[in-house]
Amino acid sequence: MPMDFSTRITSLFGIQYPIIQAGMIWVSGWRLAAAVSNAGGLGLIGAGSMKPELLAEHIRKARAATDKPFGVNLPQLRGDAEDLVQAIVDENVRIVVTSAGHPGKFLARLKDAGCVVAHVVPSLKHAMKVESVGCDAVVAEGFEAGGHNGFEETTTLTLIPQVADAVSIPVIAAGGIANGRQMLAAFALGADAVQVGTRFAATVESSAHDLYKQKVVECGDGGTILTLKKLAPVRLIRTPFALKAIEAEARGAEREELAELLGRKREMLGMFEGNLDEGEFEAGQSAALVNDVLPAAEVVRRLLAEFEDAVNRTPFRREG
Amino acid sequence: MPMDFSTRITSLFGIQYPIIQAGMIWVSGWRLAAAVSNAGGLGLIGAGSMKPELLAEHIRKARAATDKPFGVNLPQLRGDAEDLVQAIVDENVRIVVTSAGHPGKFLARLKDAGCVVAHVVPSLKHAMKVESVGCDAVVAEGFEAGGHNGFEETTTLTLIPQVADAVSIPVIAAGGIANGRQMLAAFALGADAVQVGTRFAATVESSAHDLYKQKVVECGDGGTILTLKKLAPVRLIRTPFALKAIEAEARGAEREELAELLGRKREMLGMFEGNLDEGEFEAGQSAALVNDVLPAAEVVRRLLAEFEDAVNRTPFRREG
Repeated sequence: MPMDFSTRITSLFGIQYPIIQAGMIWVSGWRLAAAVSNAGGLGLIGAGSMKPELLAEHIRKARAATDKPFGVNLPQLRGDAEDLVQAIVDENVRIVVTSAGHPGKFLARLKDAGCVVAHVVPSLKHAMKVESVGCDAVVAEGFEAGGHNGFEETTTLTLIPQVADAVSIPVIAAGGIANGRQMLAAFALGADAVQVGTRFAATVESSAHDLYKQKVVECGDGGTILTLKKLAPVRLIRTPFALKAIEAEARGAEREELAELLGRKREMLGMFEGNLDEGEFEAGQSAALVNDVLPAAEVVRRLLAEFEDAVNRTPFRREG
Repeated sequence: MPMDFSTRITSLFGIQYPIIQAGMIWVSGWRLAAAVSNAGGLGLIGAGSMKPELLAEHIRKARAATDKPFGVNLPQLRGDAEDLVQAIVDENVRIVVTSAGHPGKFLARLKDAGCVVAHVVPSLKHAMKVESVGCDAVVAEGFEAGGHNGFEETTTLTLIPQVADAVSIPVIAAGGIANGRQMLAAFALGADAVQVGTRFAATVESSAHDLYKQKVVECGDGGTILTLKKLAPVRLIRTPFALKAIEAEARGAEREELAELLGRKREMLGMFEGNLDEGEFEAGQSAALVNDVLPAAEVVRRLLAEFEDAVNRTPFRREG
C-alpha cells in the first residue's frame, strides 16, 4: 500500500509530498526549483542573489518547466526588496517564503495579490510573531542550518516542539535535515513539513559551483561552524575564508572589523565561483550526511524511501 | 494494548523502559537514581561531585531504595578517578557510564568486574572510538545538552543518524530531550534509548538547590548558552555568573583568564548552593520545555504517555 503523505502543508501549497526545497542564494534558480516541484515537493527560487528582472526571468522559466506549484524565497533586507516583491506579484507567483526582517513587512501586499506566505524564524518568540501578523505558515529553522542563523542558537530538536505547541498555523521544520529518518523525527516533533537546504544544494540542478558541491560531499561531522556572531551569525564550511572569520572572532574582533572582512559578494565568490580563499561556502551540519551529488528528483525519492523505512523500523508497536 | 518498549538497551541494562537519567554533578544522588530506576528507567548516580567514600554511601543507599538496576556516571578526568573506580567495583555496581577522557581508560577493569559500560561522546569520531575499544554502548550527546559539551557543536538531530549508521553497538541519544515527542524523534533517528538530564534535574528527588530548579522552570527559548569554548565548552543558564563568562569570551579573553574566572567549585556554588552571581547553573536547551518540578516517577510516566501520543499522532499511515 502506498503511504499517505498529506499534511496541512501539502494542502496549503497544493503539493504531493511535505518536502520543501529551501530558497538558497546562488544555488536555487529555476532549474532546481522546477526539478523539485516536478518530483512532488515544493521548489523555491532563491531571490537573494537576483535582480528583479532576473527573478522575473527565473519565474517564467520555472513556469515553463513545471505545471506544479513552485515558490520564491524573498530575503526582505535587500535594498531593492520592494522591486523583488513587484516582480513576484507581476509574475503571479502563488507561494512566497519571506525571511529576515519583520514578517509583516510585505505581507498585506503579497496576500492582496493572492499569495500564500510563510516566514522563516530561528526562535519561538519570532514564530509567535509570524502567527500574530497573519502569515499562513512558519518555517522554524534550527542552529544546525546553513547560512544565516539566529542569535538564540536553538537547535531543531528543541525549537520545533516549542513552536508546534505555541502556534496553530502549520510548522515547517528546517535545519540539519538531509534524510528520511530526520524527516520522520521532524514530524514526531510536531512539524507538518520539512524544508531541506544543503542536501538540495548538492544536486545536479543546483547552480552552485562544482567545487562547492564537492566540499559539501566531503564535509564530515564538525566540518561547519556558526561564525560572525557579532555581525550576523552564518554557518559556513571550514574553508580558508571561514578560518579567517573564526580567527578574528576568537580574538574578540569588533563588528567593524568583521564587517570589513565580510565585505561584499562573499556568497557569490564562494558558492557560485568556488573561491575557497575569498568566498563563503554556506552549508548546514547536514552536509555530514550528504555523500553524493544527485538529481533533485532522486533526492526526493530517497527522502520518501528512507522515511518509509524509518516508519517501518520504529521499534515500538502496540502489543498483540 | 500496552506498548512494547523493549530495545537493545532495555535488554543490555535489564530495564523496562529505554529512558536513562543522566548522571549529573551535584544533582543526581541515590534518591533521584533510585526513583528513576523504581519507575522502570535507569537511574545514574553522578559521581562527579562525590569523594569515593561518599559515592560508596550513595551506592549502598540506592541499593536499599530499589531492587531494580541502577548505575554510576564516572567523569574520568577527576584526579581521584582510580579511587572512584575502586568504589564502583567494591560496591558491585553493574552499570557504568563513563565520560570525559579516553573511553578505554578504565574499561578493562570495569569489564573484569562484570560491569556493562557505556561512554558519552559529542561527535562521530569519538563514537567510533568507543566502539573500537569495546564499550557495550555509546551515549551520543548533541550541542543542546547542558553542562560539558564538545568542540564540534554537532546537534542531536545531525549526530544520532551519523552515529547510528557508523557503529553496531546500541546508541543512546542525549542532548535537548525532555518530552515524549523528542523521545520518538530520537528513535526515528536510529537511537535505542534516550538519556534525559535537565528534565530530571528539576524533580523533587534531585539534590539541586531549589533556586536552580526554579531557574530551569523559568528558562525559556534562548535562555542557555554554550560558553567558555576556549577552555572547555559548557552550557549554562544565562545567570549573572554566565554573563561574566560570555562577556569575557566576546572580547577574546585567553584560556588563562577564563580558567581564572572559572576557578573552582563553580558547579557546587551554582547548582547545589543556588548562588546566581558566583556559581554555574548548567542546563540544556531542553530547559525551555520544562515548566514544573515533578516527582521523577511522574517524569517517566509523562515521557511514556507523550511518546505513545506522538506515535498515535504521526500523520503517516499506510493507506487502506
